[in-house]
Amino acid sequence: MSWVPGAEDESGFGVAHLPYGVVRVGGQPRPAVRIGDRALDLAAAESAGLVEAGGAFRGGTSLDRFLAAGPAVWQATRERLTELLTDPGAEPRVQPMLHPLGDPVLPFTVADYVDFYSSEQHARNVGQIFRPGRPPLLPNWKHLPVGYHGRAGTVVVSGTPVVRPCGQRRPGGSETPVYGPSTRLDIEAEVGFVVGVPSRPGTPVGVDRFAEHVFGVVLVNDWSARDLQAWEYQPLGPFLGKSFATSVGAWITPLAALAGAWRPLPAQDPPVLEYLREPEHRGLDLALTVHWNGTQVSAPPFAGMYWTPAQQLAHLTGNGAALRTGDLYASGTVSGAQRGQVGSFLELTWGGAEPVRLADGTERTFLLDGDSVTIGATAPAVGGGRLTLAEVSGTIRPASGTAAVPASGC
Amino acid sequence: MSWVPGAEDESGFGVAHLPYGVVRVGGQPRPAVRIGDRALDLAAAESAGLVEAGGAFRGGTSLDRFLAAGPAVWQATRERLTELLTDPGAEPRVQPMLHPLGDPVLPFTVADYVDFYSSEQHARNVGQIFRPGRPPLLPNWKHLPVGYHGRAGTVVVSGTPVVRPCGQRRPGGSETPVYGPSTRLDIEAEVGFVVGVPSRPGTPVGVDRFAEHVFGVVLVNDWSARDLQAWEYQPLGPFLGKSFATSVGAWITPLAALAGAWRPLPAQDPPVLEYLREPEHRGLDLALTVHWNGTQVSAPPFAGMYWTPAQQLAHLTGNGAALRTGDLYASGTVSGAQRGQVGSFLELTWGGAEPVRLADGTERTFLLDGDSVTIGATAPAVGGGRLTLAEVSGTIRPASGTAAVPASGC
Repeated sequence: MSWVPGAEDESGFGVAHLPYGVVRVGGQPRPAVRIGDRALDLAAAESAGLVEAGGAFRGGTSLDRFLAAGPAVWQATRERLTELLTDPGAEPRVQPMLHPLGDPVLPFTVADYVDFYSSEQHARNVGQIFRPGRPPLLPNWKHLPVGYHGRAGTVVVSGTPVVRPCGQRRPGGSETPVYGPSTRLDIEAEVGFVVGVPSRPGTPVGVDRFAEHVFGVVLVNDWSARDLQAWEYQPLGPFLGKSFATSVGAWITPLAALAGAWRPLPAQDPPVLEYLREPEHRGLDLALTVHWNGTQVSAPPFAGMYWTPAQQLAHLTGNGAALRTGDLYASGTVSGAQRGQVGSFLELTWGGAEPVRLADGTERTFLLDGDSVTIGATAPAVGGGRLTLAEVSGTIRPASGTAAVPASGC
Repeated sequence: MSWVPGAEDESGFGVAHLPYGVVRVGGQPRPAVRIGDRALDLAAAESAGLVEAGGAFRGGTSLDRFLAAGPAVWQATRERLTELLTDPGAEPRVQPMLHPLGDPVLPFTVADYVDFYSSEQHARNVGQIFRPGRPPLLPNWKHLPVGYHGRAGTVVVSGTPVVRPCGQRRPGGSETPVYGPSTRLDIEAEVGFVVGVPSRPGTPVGVDRFAEHVFGVVLVNDWSARDLQAWEYQPLGPFLGKSFATSVGAWITPLAALAGAWRPLPAQDPPVLEYLREPEHRGLDLALTVHWNGTQVSAPPFAGMYWTPAQQLAHLTGNGAALRTGDLYASGTVSGAQRGQVGSFLELTWGGAEPVRLADGTERTFLLDGDSVTIGATAPAVGGGRLTLAEVSGTIRPASGTAAVPASGC
């Protein structure tokens, strides 16, 4: 139990959680740890000798050096912070370093961004919607975690407005494309994994090395323009349908806080190749929610994903591709078996055919300008109760007028 | 004519060229300009007041700040360097700052890496090899420059050995995949464009703004494991078949040096949408060569690419995706109409069916361990003669034994 007011375990941000991020102090970004609705300035704490992380925080403006520091520093820092935030005797020294959360700040430098496609239900739904009448799962899907690289430079922190993308789409029945604002703007509710410790080129990272490299978890909204995507994606995959923005939560939940959230998974069938065979085949029991203009429209269960984060990492590096500090890889859309458990509006409205009614009585298929989406999640905490992962939210702004093509609104 | 010995125009690296890179001086990387087979330390030159680039070089270890500085600084610097390197009176002050080229150094921080697919002949060849009996060009190909994101973290400089990737592939006739070293390791000879000036999120960069953002050109070898790629690429595109390594030349040729290399292109049919319509539809007349263990096996002509670099940039940002300093986008494999003009061994050997004979009498289909490939190019210089672009070369090392799967050699 923390001495920080409002940081009870029930807050979701008690001492069992302690996610890391960045807080602005006097306008300057500083690495920080969140406790309740306060952020402890870790640059100040290390400079004052309250925390010792080998200089990972001192003078820092992001979490980059702490991510690179590795599991021993991560663990020692977490233990020390737990001590400081529960010992009332530490309050006089720590209290002055606590600050309001303020506006969200992207907490690390995103190196490469990879997006997987690891929910079987999502892959089946998308297959049925995009390729009706054909087998929804392609032959490779159960042999490897399908994935691709996204645009790292447009990963933004929760709260950043999302400008409706323009692009090429082919209106139904038309032979030729048009350029204009997307008319099928969607979300993808995902869970992202943040890499801390790099790996050497040419050296795969085995399924058993996950915790040596991955620091923690953020919620991800991989905004998707379905009309752009449908027209562009063959044969080289999604590009502009995704690259305009990907939002992530502002606070990274360390794996240590999720130690009680792992659940065994059923055996994979067909059996996977040896490099994907885990000592324990297990997933994280995160319960996601999706709110559209304040109305909860879905509750995707992360525990049921077919491919696990350890398998994704082993596959991603299986060709010898090196990891860098700040690499982010996301799970792919999290969809369960029920309509109320899907992680995209494409699936929720079945390709736009079945509108969803919001609490204000309006109906939606895809996102309108001004719409807001918030993805949240909770997870079992070590010792009981639940953690609240930092939400990821965004509001749609109209396509902006640089008048690349005036008549189109773009 | 430069006073630097060996920097005649015929060297390809005379004063008409002046590409930028990084040289190690006393072990420390320094931004540099190449003249003949020497590199001028620009950090030293700016500190000594010989060059004034607003501090873009002073204390620098890469070209990053110079790339970000924009066209006015690029032009003024080029003019000043031309003066210093041609005026014999400047020799006493400049000479001590000239160094041997040394081992290649990656000259900038790669932000995002995008790879296009803009040679019609290459797209047709690949379509015929991978999807025989079906139309080789997909319906979108002539409407937009198809592209995707690659892995920025595995972009390496020319000369870096390339470890043969392991991965999943499905041997011919087999239902199930195996994991092991790629048996169809290939190259892709490409031309890359390096972005200097960033753009704002939500703001497309029009076809007429190319020269305001792009600094220059490097040769690219986008190494490709065709067996991994063929099995993994549907529906989300190439991933591990490409992400193990992408090699780039060590010296960036500024656009200013290529002012005499633009050639008008035939009108595109069907006509492109307005956001892709250029004031002048033109391409760069670069003549590429591909050497395999010293034997020239191909001479791909870049001038005939269907999509231009200005169109690629306008498309890449057409959805509002922001540019960052250090973004790299490559043309896609450069292939002409003749077999001796193709930019991949997949095409040169027609999917491995028609081996190529090297000068030592051996035959090849795909790359063997120990093989070396060098991609070079020349371009018309302003005022006559030709520039030599910095080559990109690499040698294949055997798949490395971290024993992820011992029996496989991986």
